Amino acid sequence: MSDELQSLIQALCYLPGVGPKSAQRMVFHLLRHHRQKGLELARHLEHVMQNMSHCARCHNYTSQTYCSVCQNPDRDTKTVCVVEYPYDIPMIEKSGVYEGTYFVLMGKISPLDGLGPEDIGIPKLYEVVMQNQVEEIILALSPTLEGQTTMHFIQSLFQNHPVKISQLALGIPYDCELEVLDTTTIKQALRNRVLLATN
Amino acid sequence: MSDELQSLIQALCYLPGVGPKSAQRMVFHLLRHHRQKGLELARHLEHVMQNMSHCARCHNYTSQTYCSVCQNPDRDTKTVCVVEYPYDIPMIEKSGVYEGTYFVLMGKISPLDGLGPEDIGIPKLYEVVMQNQVEEIILALSPTLEGQTTMHFIQSLFQNHPVKISQLALGIPYDCELEVLDTTTIKQALRNRVLLATN
Repeated sequence: MSDELQSLIQALCYLPGVGPKSAQRMVFHLLRHHRQKGLELARHLEHVMQNMSHCARCHNYTSQTYCSVCQNPDRDTKTVCVVEYPYDIPMIEKSGVYEGTYFVLMGKISPLDGLGPEDIGIPKLYEVVMQNQVEEIILALSPTLEGQTTMHFIQSLFQNHPVKISQLALGIPYDCELEVLDTTTIKQALRNRVLLATN
Repeated sequence: MSDELQSLIQALCYLPGVGPKSAQRMVFHLLRHHRQKGLELARHLEHVMQNMSHCARCHNYTSQTYCSVCQNPDRDTKTVCVVEYPYDIPMIEKSGVYEGTYFVLMGKISPLDGLGPEDIGIPKLYEVVMQNQVEEIILALSPTLEGQTTMHFIQSLFQNHPVKISQLALGIPYDCELEVLDTTTIKQALRNRVLLATN
Protein backbone atom coordinates (compact mmCIF):
# COMPACT_ATOMS: atom_id res chain seq x y z
CA MET A 1 0.00 0.00 0.00
CA SER A 2 1.29 3.50 -0.79
CA ASP A 3 2.84 5.61 2.00
CA GLU A 4 0.11 8.21 1.53
CA LEU A 5 -2.65 5.68 2.22
CA GLN A 6 -0.67 4.29 5.19
CA SER A 7 -0.33 7.81 6.66
CA LEU A 8 -4.06 8.44 6.26
CA ILE A 9 -4.90 5.08 7.87
CA GLN A 10 -2.57 5.90 10.80
CA ALA A 11 -4.14 9.35 11.17
CA LEU A 12 -7.67 7.87 11.22
CA CYS A 13 -6.55 5.71 14.16
CA TYR A 14 -6.30 8.94 16.25
CA LEU A 15 -10.11 8.78 16.32
CA PRO A 16 -11.40 6.94 19.38
CA GLY A 17 -12.79 3.50 18.52
CA VAL A 18 -11.00 3.29 15.15
CA GLY A 19 -8.32 0.62 14.64
CA PRO A 20 -6.16 -0.10 11.56
CA LYS A 21 -8.72 -2.49 10.04
CA SER A 22 -11.67 -0.13 10.25
CA ALA A 23 -9.46 2.83 9.21
CA GLN A 24 -8.51 0.89 6.06
CA ARG A 25 -12.17 0.15 5.35
CA MET A 26 -12.99 3.85 5.77
CA VAL A 27 -10.26 4.97 3.35
CA PHE A 28 -11.24 2.53 0.61
CA HIS A 29 -14.92 3.30 1.08
CA LEU A 30 -14.33 7.04 0.63
CA LEU A 31 -11.91 6.56 -2.29
CA ARG A 32 -14.29 4.27 -4.09
CA HIS A 33 -17.67 5.84 -3.47
CA HIS A 34 -17.43 9.22 -1.77
CA ARG A 35 -14.36 11.30 -2.70
CA GLN A 36 -16.34 14.53 -2.56
CA LYS A 37 -17.68 13.66 0.88
CA GLY A 38 -14.17 12.73 2.01
CA LEU A 39 -12.98 16.18 0.92
CA GLU A 40 -15.88 17.84 2.73
CA LEU A 41 -14.97 15.91 5.88
CA ALA A 42 -11.33 17.04 5.59
CA ARG A 43 -12.39 20.67 5.27
CA HIS A 44 -14.88 20.64 8.15
CA LEU A 45 -12.29 18.91 10.32
CA GLU A 46 -9.58 21.44 9.50
CA HIS A 47 -11.97 24.36 10.14
CA VAL A 48 -13.12 23.02 13.51
CA MET A 49 -9.61 22.10 14.71
CA GLN A 50 -8.33 25.57 13.80
CA ASN A 51 -11.23 27.76 14.88
CA MET A 52 -12.97 26.28 17.90
CA SER A 53 -12.31 28.02 21.18
CA HIS A 54 -14.37 28.42 24.35
CA CYS A 55 -17.35 30.69 25.04
CA ALA A 56 -16.20 33.59 27.22
CA ARG A 57 -19.17 33.06 29.54
CA CYS A 58 -20.07 29.36 29.77
CA HIS A 59 -16.88 27.73 28.44
CA ASN A 60 -18.75 25.64 25.81
CA TYR A 61 -17.05 25.24 22.42
CA THR A 62 -17.68 28.03 19.93
CA SER A 63 -15.79 29.80 17.16
CA GLN A 64 -17.18 33.16 18.31
CA THR A 65 -16.73 35.08 21.57
CA TYR A 66 -20.02 33.76 22.96
CA CYS A 67 -21.77 30.46 22.14
CA SER A 68 -25.24 30.35 20.57
CA VAL A 69 -26.97 29.72 23.94
CA CYS A 70 -25.21 32.65 25.66
CA GLN A 71 -25.97 34.88 22.64
CA ASN A 72 -29.69 34.02 22.72
CA PRO A 73 -31.59 36.82 24.53
CA ASP A 74 -34.50 34.44 25.28
CA ARG A 75 -32.38 32.20 27.53
CA ASP A 76 -32.77 32.77 31.25
CA THR A 77 -29.39 33.88 32.63
CA LYS A 78 -30.65 33.58 36.21
CA THR A 79 -30.52 29.78 35.94
CA VAL A 80 -27.22 28.03 35.23
CA CYS A 81 -26.97 24.32 34.52
CA VAL A 82 -23.48 23.00 35.33
CA VAL A 83 -22.32 20.11 33.12
CA GLU A 84 -19.09 18.15 32.89
CA TYR A 85 -18.54 18.28 29.11
CA PRO A 86 -19.87 20.16 26.05
CA TYR A 87 -21.51 16.97 24.77
CA ASP A 88 -23.82 16.92 27.79
CA ILE A 89 -25.48 20.11 26.53
CA PRO A 90 -27.21 18.64 23.42
CA MET A 91 -28.65 15.88 25.66
CA ILE A 92 -30.26 18.48 27.91
CA GLU A 93 -31.33 20.71 24.99
CA LYS A 94 -33.07 17.73 23.35
CA SER A 95 -35.19 17.25 26.49
CA GLY A 96 -36.87 20.55 25.55
CA VAL A 97 -37.61 21.51 29.17
CA TYR A 98 -34.63 23.74 29.94
CA GLU A 99 -34.53 27.43 29.07
CA GLY A 100 -31.64 28.60 31.23
CA THR A 101 -27.93 28.89 30.39
CA TYR A 102 -25.02 26.52 30.96
CA PHE A 103 -21.60 26.31 32.49
CA VAL A 104 -19.17 23.66 31.22
CA LEU A 105 -16.57 22.45 33.73
CA MET A 106 -14.51 20.34 31.29
CA GLY A 107 -14.10 17.64 33.91
CA LYS A 108 -14.64 16.88 37.58
CA ILE A 109 -12.55 17.45 40.70
CA SER A 110 -10.25 14.44 40.82
CA PRO A 111 -7.31 14.61 43.27
CA LEU A 112 -5.92 11.33 41.87
CA ASP A 113 -5.61 12.91 38.40
CA GLY A 114 -4.32 16.17 39.90
CA LEU A 115 -7.51 18.05 38.94
CA GLY A 116 -8.51 20.70 41.49
CA PRO A 117 -11.31 23.30 41.42
CA GLU A 118 -9.17 25.78 39.41
CA ASP A 119 -8.46 23.20 36.68
CA ILE A 120 -12.15 22.78 35.93
CA GLY A 121 -12.93 26.51 35.94
CA ILE A 122 -14.78 26.81 39.26
CA PRO A 123 -13.47 30.37 39.88
CA LYS A 124 -15.04 31.35 36.54
CA LEU A 125 -18.35 29.71 37.57
CA TYR A 126 -18.26 31.79 40.79
CA GLU A 127 -17.71 34.94 38.74
CA VAL A 128 -20.60 34.09 36.36
CA VAL A 129 -22.96 33.40 39.27
CA MET A 130 -22.04 36.69 40.97
CA GLN A 131 -22.09 38.89 37.85
CA ASN A 132 -25.46 37.59 36.62
CA GLN A 133 -27.15 37.38 40.02
CA VAL A 134 -27.93 33.75 39.31
CA GLU A 135 -30.91 32.41 41.27
CA GLU A 136 -30.54 28.68 40.67
CA ILE A 137 -27.57 26.44 39.92
CA ILE A 138 -28.60 23.02 38.57
CA LEU A 139 -25.82 20.46 38.99
CA ALA A 140 -26.14 18.06 36.05
CA LEU A 141 -23.05 16.01 36.85
CA SER A 142 -22.93 12.22 36.79
CA PRO A 143 -23.37 10.91 40.35
CA THR A 144 -20.00 9.11 40.48
CA LEU A 145 -17.56 9.63 43.37
CA GLU A 146 -15.80 12.45 41.50
CA GLY A 147 -19.09 13.99 40.37
CA GLN A 148 -20.33 14.00 43.98
CA THR A 149 -17.07 15.54 45.23
CA THR A 150 -17.46 18.30 42.63
CA MET A 151 -21.11 18.88 43.54
CA HIS A 152 -20.25 19.08 47.28
CA PHE A 153 -17.48 21.55 46.52
CA ILE A 154 -19.78 23.83 44.49
CA GLN A 155 -22.45 23.58 47.18
CA SER A 156 -20.04 24.62 49.95
CA LEU A 157 -18.65 27.44 47.77
CA PHE A 158 -22.07 29.08 47.66
CA GLN A 159 -23.27 28.21 51.18
CA ASN A 160 -23.35 31.85 52.31
CA HIS A 161 -24.81 33.13 49.06
CA PRO A 162 -28.58 33.40 48.32
CA VAL A 163 -28.77 30.91 45.44
CA LYS A 164 -30.80 27.70 45.04
CA ILE A 165 -28.65 24.69 44.23
CA SER A 166 -30.25 21.55 42.83
CA GLN A 167 -29.07 18.25 41.44
CA LEU A 168 -30.65 16.05 38.72
CA ALA A 169 -33.04 13.49 40.25
CA LEU A 170 -31.60 10.05 40.93
CA GLY A 171 -33.90 7.17 40.03
CA ILE A 172 -34.85 4.48 37.58
CA PRO A 173 -34.28 5.39 33.91
CA TYR A 174 -37.41 5.39 31.77
CA ASP A 175 -38.08 2.08 29.99
CA CYS A 176 -35.48 0.18 32.05
CA GLU A 177 -35.92 -3.24 33.69
CA LEU A 178 -35.36 -3.24 37.47
CA GLU A 179 -33.24 -6.39 37.34
CA VAL A 180 -30.47 -4.73 35.30
CA LEU A 181 -30.03 -1.83 37.76
CA ASP A 182 -27.54 -1.57 40.62
CA THR A 183 -28.70 -1.54 44.27
CA THR A 184 -27.64 2.09 44.85
CA THR A 185 -30.00 3.26 42.13
CA ILE A 186 -32.84 1.18 43.57
CA LYS A 187 -32.08 2.56 47.05
CA GLN A 188 -32.20 6.17 45.76
CA ALA A 189 -35.39 5.47 43.79
CA LEU A 190 -37.03 4.11 46.95
CA ARG A 191 -35.89 7.08 49.04
CA ASN A 192 -37.05 9.58 46.41
CA ARG A 193 -40.33 7.78 45.72
CA VAL A 194 -43.18 9.99 44.54
CA LEU A 195 -46.52 9.79 46.33
CA LEU A 196 -49.36 8.92 43.92
CA ALA A 197 -52.35 8.77 46.33
CA THR A 198 -53.18 8.83 50.07
CA ASN A 199 -56.39 6.83 50.22
CA MET B 1 -24.17 22.75 19.64
CA SER B 2 -22.68 25.12 17.04
CA ASP B 3 -23.47 24.61 13.34
CA GLU B 4 -19.78 24.03 12.63
CA LEU B 5 -19.61 21.13 15.08
CA GLN B 6 -22.90 19.74 13.71
CA SER B 7 -21.52 19.86 10.14
CA LEU B 8 -18.34 18.04 11.21
CA ILE B 9 -20.35 15.40 13.07
CA GLN B 10 -22.53 14.89 9.98
CA ALA B 11 -19.46 14.61 7.75
CA LEU B 12 -17.86 12.02 10.06
CA CYS B 13 -21.01 9.92 9.58
CA TYR B 14 -19.95 9.44 5.91
CA LEU B 15 -17.36 7.02 7.32
CA PRO B 16 -18.63 3.44 7.39
CA GLY B 17 -19.44 2.25 10.92
CA VAL B 18 -19.67 5.79 12.35
CA GLY B 19 -23.01 7.04 13.69
CA PRO B 20 -23.91 10.42 15.24
CA LYS B 21 -23.01 9.31 18.79
CA SER B 22 -19.54 8.04 17.95
CA ALA B 23 -18.95 10.99 15.59
CA GLN B 24 -19.69 13.33 18.49
CA ARG B 25 -17.29 11.42 20.74
CA MET B 26 -14.60 11.68 18.03
CA VAL B 27 -15.01 15.45 17.64
CA PHE B 28 -14.84 16.19 21.35
CA HIS B 29 -11.91 13.82 21.82
CA LEU B 30 -9.89 15.58 19.09
CA LEU B 31 -10.88 19.07 20.27
CA ARG B 32 -9.93 18.32 23.84
CA HIS B 33 -6.80 16.25 23.50
CA HIS B 34 -5.50 16.11 19.93
CA ARG B 35 -6.12 19.23 17.86
CA GLN B 36 -2.79 18.86 16.08
CA LYS B 37 -3.58 15.24 15.21
CA GLY B 38 -7.02 16.28 14.02
CA LEU B 39 -5.39 18.80 11.67
CA GLU B 40 -2.95 16.15 10.41
CA LEU B 41 -5.89 13.83 9.72
CA ALA B 42 -7.69 16.59 7.79
CA ARG B 43 -4.62 17.21 5.64
CA HIS B 44 -3.86 13.55 4.90
CA LEU B 45 -7.51 13.03 4.02
CA GLU B 46 -7.62 16.00 1.66
CA HIS B 47 -4.37 14.90 -0.02
CA VAL B 48 -5.56 11.33 -0.57
CA MET B 49 -9.04 12.31 -1.79
CA GLN B 50 -7.52 14.76 -4.28
CA ASN B 51 -4.50 12.83 -5.53
CA MET B 52 -5.24 9.11 -5.55
CA SER B 53 -5.78 7.58 -8.94
CA HIS B 54 -5.20 4.10 -10.33
CA CYS B 55 -1.94 2.41 -11.37
CA ALA B 56 -1.75 2.31 -15.18
CA ARG B 57 -0.78 -1.37 -15.08
CA CYS B 58 -2.47 -3.13 -12.13
CA HIS B 59 -5.25 -0.67 -11.30
CA ASN B 60 -4.27 -0.45 -7.58
CA TYR B 61 -4.55 2.99 -5.93
CA THR B 62 -1.52 5.24 -6.37
CA SER B 63 -0.81 8.95 -6.75
CA GLN B 64 1.80 8.20 -9.42
CA THR B 65 1.51 6.59 -12.87
CA TYR B 66 2.56 3.18 -11.53
CA CYS B 67 2.09 1.79 -8.00
CA SER B 68 5.05 0.80 -5.80
CA VAL B 69 4.71 -2.92 -6.66
CA CYS B 70 4.64 -2.28 -10.44
CA GLN B 71 7.61 0.12 -10.11
CA ASN B 72 9.69 -2.45 -8.20
CA PRO B 73 12.10 -4.17 -10.67
CA ASP B 74 12.45 -7.17 -8.30
CA ARG B 75 8.81 -8.17 -8.67
CA ASP B 76 8.10 -11.01 -11.09
CA THR B 77 5.90 -9.65 -13.89
CA LYS B 78 5.33 -13.17 -15.27
CA THR B 79 3.03 -13.94 -12.34
CA VAL B 80 -0.14 -11.91 -11.77
CA CYS B 81 -2.31 -12.27 -8.70
CA VAL B 82 -5.88 -11.12 -9.41
CA VAL B 83 -7.67 -9.60 -6.40
CA GLU B 84 -11.07 -8.00 -5.93
CA TYR B 85 -10.05 -4.85 -4.07
CA PRO B 86 -6.89 -2.84 -3.25
CA TYR B 87 -7.19 -3.81 0.41
CA ASP B 88 -6.65 -7.46 -0.46
CA ILE B 89 -3.08 -6.64 -1.54
CA PRO B 90 -1.65 -5.81 1.94
CA MET B 91 -3.08 -9.14 3.21
CA ILE B 92 -1.16 -11.06 0.54
CA GLU B 93 1.98 -8.91 0.94
CA LYS B 94 2.02 -9.59 4.70
CA SER B 95 2.12 -13.35 4.01
CA GLY B 96 5.63 -12.74 2.68
CA VAL B 97 5.47 -15.60 0.15
CA TYR B 98 4.41 -13.71 -2.97
CA GLU B 99 6.89 -11.97 -5.26
CA GLY B 100 4.77 -11.46 -8.38
CA THR B 101 2.61 -8.52 -9.41
CA TYR B 102 -1.11 -7.83 -8.98
CA PHE B 103 -4.21 -6.93 -10.89
CA VAL B 104 -7.08 -5.27 -9.05
CA LEU B 105 -10.56 -5.88 -10.51
CA MET B 106 -12.44 -3.41 -8.28
CA GLY B 107 -15.29 -5.85 -7.88
CA LYS B 108 -16.70 -9.10 -9.21
CA ILE B 109 -18.94 -9.98 -12.13
CA SER B 110 -22.45 -9.52 -10.77
CA PRO B 111 -25.29 -9.51 -13.31
CA LEU B 112 -27.78 -8.55 -10.57
CA ASP B 113 -25.83 -5.34 -9.88
CA GLY B 114 -25.30 -4.76 -13.59
CA LEU B 115 -21.55 -5.45 -13.35
CA GLY B 116 -20.14 -7.21 -16.40
CA PRO B 117 -16.53 -8.13 -17.35
CA GLU B 118 -15.86 -4.64 -18.78
CA ASP B 119 -16.95 -2.91 -15.58
CA ILE B 120 -14.31 -4.72 -13.54
CA GLY B 121 -11.50 -4.15 -16.03
CA ILE B 122 -11.17 -7.65 -17.50
CA PRO B 123 -10.17 -6.30 -20.99
CA LYS B 124 -7.26 -4.50 -19.24
CA LEU B 125 -6.28 -7.75 -17.46
CA TYR B 126 -6.22 -9.49 -20.86
CA GLU B 127 -3.98 -6.75 -22.24
CA VAL B 128 -1.57 -6.99 -19.25
CA VAL B 129 -1.34 -10.78 -19.58
CA MET B 130 -0.61 -10.54 -23.31
CA GLN B 131 1.86 -7.66 -23.13
CA ASN B 132 3.92 -9.17 -20.29
CA GLN B 133 3.78 -12.77 -21.50
CA VAL B 134 2.38 -13.74 -18.12
CA GLU B 135 3.00 -17.40 -17.19
CA GLU B 136 0.68 -17.76 -14.20
CA ILE B 137 -2.52 -16.04 -13.14
CA ILE B 138 -3.37 -16.63 -9.47
CA LEU B 139 -7.06 -15.98 -8.78
CA ALA B 140 -7.23 -14.67 -5.21
CA LEU B 141 -10.98 -13.95 -5.21
CA SER B 142 -13.32 -14.87 -2.42
CA PRO B 143 -15.08 -18.16 -3.28
CA THR B 144 -18.59 -16.70 -3.20
CA LEU B 145 -21.04 -17.22 -6.08
CA GLU B 146 -19.94 -13.96 -7.75
CA GLY B 147 -16.27 -14.69 -7.11
CA GLN B 148 -16.65 -18.12 -8.73
CA THR B 149 -18.49 -16.64 -11.73
CA THR B 150 -15.62 -14.18 -12.17
CA MET B 151 -12.98 -16.91 -11.84
CA HIS B 152 -14.80 -19.08 -14.42
CA PHE B 153 -15.02 -16.15 -16.80
CA ILE B 154 -11.27 -15.40 -16.55
CA GLN B 155 -10.48 -19.11 -16.94
CA SER B 156 -12.54 -19.39 -20.13
CA LEU B 157 -11.06 -16.13 -21.48
CA PHE B 158 -7.58 -17.67 -21.46
CA GLN B 159 -8.52 -21.23 -22.39
CA ASN B 160 -6.67 -21.09 -25.72
CA HIS B 161 -3.68 -19.22 -24.32
CA PRO B 162 -0.57 -20.90 -22.77
CA VAL B 163 -0.92 -19.59 -19.20
CA LYS B 164 -1.27 -21.44 -15.88
CA ILE B 165 -4.34 -20.38 -13.92
CA SER B 166 -4.59 -21.20 -10.23
CA GLN B 167 -6.95 -20.39 -7.38
CA LEU B 168 -6.20 -19.95 -3.66
CA ALA B 169 -6.56 -23.25 -1.77
CA LEU B 170 -9.92 -23.84 -0.09
CA GLY B 171 -9.72 -25.37 3.37
CA ILE B 172 -9.78 -24.86 7.10
CA PRO B 173 -8.32 -21.53 8.29
CA TYR B 174 -5.32 -21.85 10.61
CA ASP B 175 -6.22 -21.87 14.32
CA CYS B 176 -9.94 -22.33 13.67
CA GLU B 177 -12.29 -24.75 15.46
CA LEU B 178 -14.02 -27.21 13.12
CA GLU B 179 -17.38 -26.71 14.80
CA VAL B 180 -17.63 -23.05 13.75
CA LEU B 181 -17.07 -23.81 10.05
CA ASP B 182 -19.70 -24.34 7.37
CA THR B 183 -20.17 -27.73 5.69
CA THR B 184 -18.94 -26.54 2.26
CA THR B 185 -15.58 -25.61 3.75
CA ILE B 186 -15.31 -28.99 5.50
CA LYS B 187 -16.28 -30.73 2.23
CA GLN B 188 -13.55 -28.87 0.31
CA ALA B 189 -10.99 -29.51 3.05
CA LEU B 190 -11.77 -33.24 2.87
CA ARG B 191 -11.54 -33.28 -0.94
CA ASN B 192 -8.26 -31.34 -0.91
CA ARG B 193 -6.77 -33.31 1.98
CA VAL B 194 -2.98 -33.57 2.02
CA LEU B 195 -1.33 -36.98 2.35
CA LEU B 196 1.00 -37.15 5.36
CA ALA B 197 2.19 -40.78 5.19
CA THR B 198 1.50 -44.06 3.35
CA ASN B 199 2.55 -46.66 5.90
